[in-house]
Amino acid sequence: MPEAASDTRAAIGDSEFDRDTAVTRRAPGVYDIDLSAGWTIISAVNGGYLLAVLGRALADTLPHPDPFTISAHYLTASQPGPAVIRADVVRTGRTLSTGQASLFQYDEQGAEVERIRVLASYGDLDALPDDVRTTAKPPAFPPMDQCFGPEDGPAPVEGSSAITDRLMLKLDPSTLGWALGAPSGKGEMRAWFGLADGRDADPLSLLLAVDALPPTAFEIGLSGWVPTVELTVHVRCRPAPGPLRVSLTTRNLAGGFLEEDAEVWDSADRLVAQSRQLARVRLG
Amino acid sequence: MPEAASDTRAAIGDSEFDRDTAVTRRAPGVYDIDLSAGWTIISAVNGGYLLAVLGRALADTLPHPDPFTISAHYLTASQPGPAVIRADVVRTGRTLSTGQASLFQYDEQGAEVERIRVLASYGDLDALPDDVRTTAKPPAFPPMDQCFGPEDGPAPVEGSSAITDRLMLKLDPSTLGWALGAPSGKGEMRAWFGLADGRDADPLSLLLAVDALPPTAFEIGLSGWVPTVELTVHVRCRPAPGPLRVSLTTRNLAGGFLEEDAEVWDSADRLVAQSRQLARVRLG
Repeated sequence: MPEAASDTRAAIGDSEFDRDTAVTRRAPGVYDIDLSAGWTIISAVNGGYLLAVLGRALADTLPHPDPFTISAHYLTASQPGPAVIRADVVRTGRTLSTGQASLFQYDEQGAEVERIRVLASYGDLDALPDDVRTTAKPPAFPPMDQCFGPEDGPAPVEGSSAITDRLMLKLDPSTLGWALGAPSGKGEMRAWFGLADGRDADPLSLLLAVDALPPTAFEIGLSGWVPTVELTVHVRCRPAPGPLRVSLTTRNLAGGFLEEDAEVWDSADRLVAQSRQLARVRLG
Repeated sequence: MPEAASDTRAAIGDSEFDRDTAVTRRAPGVYDIDLSAGWTIISAVNGGYLLAVLGRALADTLPHPDPFTISAHYLTASQPGPAVIRADVVRTGRTLSTGQASLFQYDEQGAEVERIRVLASYGDLDALPDDVRTTAKPPAFPPMDQCFGPEDGPAPVEGSSAITDRLMLKLDPSTLGWALGAPSGKGEMRAWFGLADGRDADPLSLLLAVDALPPTAFEIGLSGWVPTVELTVHVRCRPAPGPLRVSLTTRNLAGGFLEEDAEVWDSADRLVAQSRQLARVRLG
């Protein structure tokens, strides 16, 4: 077979993201995975990558293929390396099925420590009727060539930035003040988003997309870590090929917590995913 | 003891809502409850009432008192009558603890049928710092005496409306077109909200407040049933005494599903709760 040309885009199912989220079924509902160090940021494994890993295990366990709504509570910080997922069917219906999954790693004594617990309802996006009656409009985005990625400047965050090598991330300059020492004060972050190897988006990679931008907290002027407590994603439509636009908004920072809402729009101007997370603000 | 005057407001802990959400611990993590028929609408037990019932069981099971984020997946339709709740601690931390709970009822053979499963992280609202850096603004609401409740007109919905006797609900006339046969087409619903017996709001009753208004689908022009698939509530602040303002928004109806976002504002103009649900549209 000829070698792929260097401009060949990775296909869905045969990309870095697919290899790094692949789970191996050890027994019914029990899956092994080696969490890749390639999806870390600062010292943590990215929460969207972890959600995609759990989403794959649930897709294997449940009779329906696509996460319609998935809620994750993040319990302890995951590390690159071996992990086991235990997934169960909660209920099976004709249109929707519901499942639960937990990801565990091991402490120094070899005991299982739970990292994340997830509840999700799955369906089949391709079986949905085509009706769309929406008032949602895509946010205004500058063209991609007027946006900036990590490769366009000095790394503004200390620590690992491995995940940035795996993403095509082009930030709207109006939400980039934080990287220049002048955060806007507004809780907004917007970016064109894709996978670096050109793999198109699918419902599973949308779980990554909602949690892959710099946190809105940076633009609010907070420089500390913002660990996710809980993240819920609704996947509303199979995304069209091409880059996504991801828009994050925080309206309420109070009592040391903030919400971060994400909208993901595809190249056909459809709202393909919505998410909200509750995160803690750890002031440096 | 003298009888209470008829204008006495029910106190938190001694109101109809408190009595109807009270769970009885049968064993550690196992609670009995008789679901009240007083919180039904059409043929279903209200999803917010059910969430409050599960929230009470979790408050008893976990070391922290208040639901910071609670995600419920609704599996089968609950009926008034006996139910059992099984609750477990997932993880205990200093600031937050995480728990899981399920509500079961019984089929004709007496077998348990799971109605709802919940994952939640609890904390202590009173222990949070006072910092507020928010850009969220309360939505415009007409004064309460310019809003309308179920008692102001003929019941627009067929079936049980028992829950309306337990609520103080005054709808913004600009979101009342559906009741007059002229829905606005906008996915909005706004109401002043309280409990009919005058009990003030607390974190538990906020779980009811986010799911107690007529669905936004009515204003979109859909008259069918809109069952909740999943509902996640963030409680952000202990509400001040006095009526609440609840604002619902739906932006995206597609493929037979819609999201419904709720904001709850207290009398001190603080955003005390945010929620989002994914619901199915059942076209008549």
